[in-house]
Amino acid sequence: MTEFELIARIGQLINDLPRNGFEAPGDDCTVLGIGNGESLLFTSDLLTEGIHFLRAATPPYELGRKALAVNLSDVAAMGGRAVATLLSIALPADTPDSWAEDFLRGYRDLSQEEGVMLAGGDTTSSQRDISLNVTVIGRASDRHIKRRSDARAGDIIVAGGELGASGAGLRDLLAGRYDTANARIHNAPQAQTAEGLWLGGHPEVHAMIDLSDGLASDLRHILALSHVGARIDVERLPVAAGADTATAVTGGEDYKLLFTVASEALPELCHAFEARFGRQLYPIGAITADNTGEIVWLDRGDRITPDWHGYEHRV
Amino acid sequence: MTEFELIARIGQLINDLPRNGFEAPGDDCTVLGIGNGESLLFTSDLLTEGIHFLRAATPPYELGRKALAVNLSDVAAMGGRAVATLLSIALPADTPDSWAEDFLRGYRDLSQEEGVMLAGGDTTSSQRDISLNVTVIGRASDRHIKRRSDARAGDIIVAGGELGASGAGLRDLLAGRYDTANARIHNAPQAQTAEGLWLGGHPEVHAMIDLSDGLASDLRHILALSHVGARIDVERLPVAAGADTATAVTGGEDYKLLFTVASEALPELCHAFEARFGRQLYPIGAITADNTGEIVWLDRGDRITPDWHGYEHRV
Repeated sequence: MTEFELIARIGQLINDLPRNGFEAPGDDCTVLGIGNGESLLFTSDLLTEGIHFLRAATPPYELGRKALAVNLSDVAAMGGRAVATLLSIALPADTPDSWAEDFLRGYRDLSQEEGVMLAGGDTTSSQRDISLNVTVIGRASDRHIKRRSDARAGDIIVAGGELGASGAGLRDLLAGRYDTANARIHNAPQAQTAEGLWLGGHPEVHAMIDLSDGLASDLRHILALSHVGARIDVERLPVAAGADTATAVTGGEDYKLLFTVASEALPELCHAFEARFGRQLYPIGAITADNTGEIVWLDRGDRITPDWHGYEHRV
Repeated sequence: MTEFELIARIGQLINDLPRNGFEAPGDDCTVLGIGNGESLLFTSDLLTEGIHFLRAATPPYELGRKALAVNLSDVAAMGGRAVATLLSIALPADTPDSWAEDFLRGYRDLSQEEGVMLAGGDTTSSQRDISLNVTVIGRASDRHIKRRSDARAGDIIVAGGELGASGAGLRDLLAGRYDTANARIHNAPQAQTAEGLWLGGHPEVHAMIDLSDGLASDLRHILALSHVGARIDVERLPVAAGADTATAVTGGEDYKLLFTVASEALPELCHAFEARFGRQLYPIGAITADNTGEIVWLDRGDRITPDWHGYEHRV
């Protein structure tokens, strides 16, 4: 069963459960309105040794930061602010105390930088491999929440930063080059937390998601839920140094924001973003009325048909 | 490092993080007040193959129920009602599809029986062992929340049901006897969800916890946080059929509630509980003013000094 098949099966099974005020799952976070125009956001990620990280290649301090960062990125992608986390750790008996100490210090340091409480969790043992689950609780004004389903035909598609560095870094790590700039980005990605919160306050920003599985995969979630299509101008993709276009499009774990914005509001938004963050936004294409959910790739106006798919997880 | 040492280290590291409205961790759940006299409750448990369950001995349907039940029990122990969960599953490539299907059906069935939404989570792969993390979100009236820190000298200590069945069942399972009544209880424990919610509505109930690590261990959490001691009358312990006193005191995973109640209110509470649930409560001792947090064990009034400790996790 692939991950997507498993998710589909879960969707069937839980269809008749009561909602209890929660929105249906399917976005970066689940949303619970708590009144007074405010909502809570919830997201979880489970990281397992040998799949998401290698003990030899991932320094525990960086892993502590990354385990939190990937979830903060999901809250940012909804336009919210993370307020607390629950951390579950399962460690095999052969884990050095220094591993746990360094992991926790990384997790704590990023919590502190982002102003996030560690509110609970679980500590336990495992037979052979380390596993780590992080649940993040965020808050957002109801009217700031960005959903994957809100893209509109004519919107401009914008990337929040350069793409492909993490995928290139993974290639470095697997080749034993642990010390490259991209390897460090792969091991300790930065979530665009302040950017997501800021974009949440801009109503001209419609749909938003974070790029965890690669543009080719993640953009399709927006298209499917918004019942639209997309055109991407390949030559405008902000390919990170050391990466190539295919890695920028299909590599996972960049954790940059991807959003759509009303075209007439784009220049002012880009200007204000640059003034606020000192970095530019990257318009890379447009939302189309094609409701098949397909991405049309254009290279300087000519259609190309590359075999680009984001990472498809097998479970 | 033991689990308790790791928890202590986490406590030191996170000491200076902002609270963001959350109470400090340390109880069965973390509490977030959301206004209008209401709070949300959060708890997480991570279960790993070979430690918390064996693929050969734990039918996946029962495991699906159990993974949820142990967290529902934590919400019940605070006097709250579970409203939603986040489920993270990591499956190795050799997991049969039927295992995932049966696990999910068990999880779904108990969710339905308890009226709980499945609001999100994560599905991923693992190298060798299955791991499962469940986060439960509960709600409670602020004035119904029961904390471990609220026991008072003179309170009667009450067990919500018989003890030791799960520990006896684990012994059966490890001996290859998979089909005993206690083995079934171990594999699919019932959380006292309705009972916890009901006790939450009774202000004469002071401190409450659920028995996950055994009376000898869990009662000490109440004593430490309430700065009191306890006297337990061993002959009054409700030892389950097939278990012995030591198992009832030190065996884990009974998931019965343990609480303290103002002594003058005990008869009426027991009567009302029996009328409501058709089962009895078991007064087993009393809270004392001894602030060393020690448990004094009495057998028909004579002090005994057994070597009883709850399960101390090693991580």
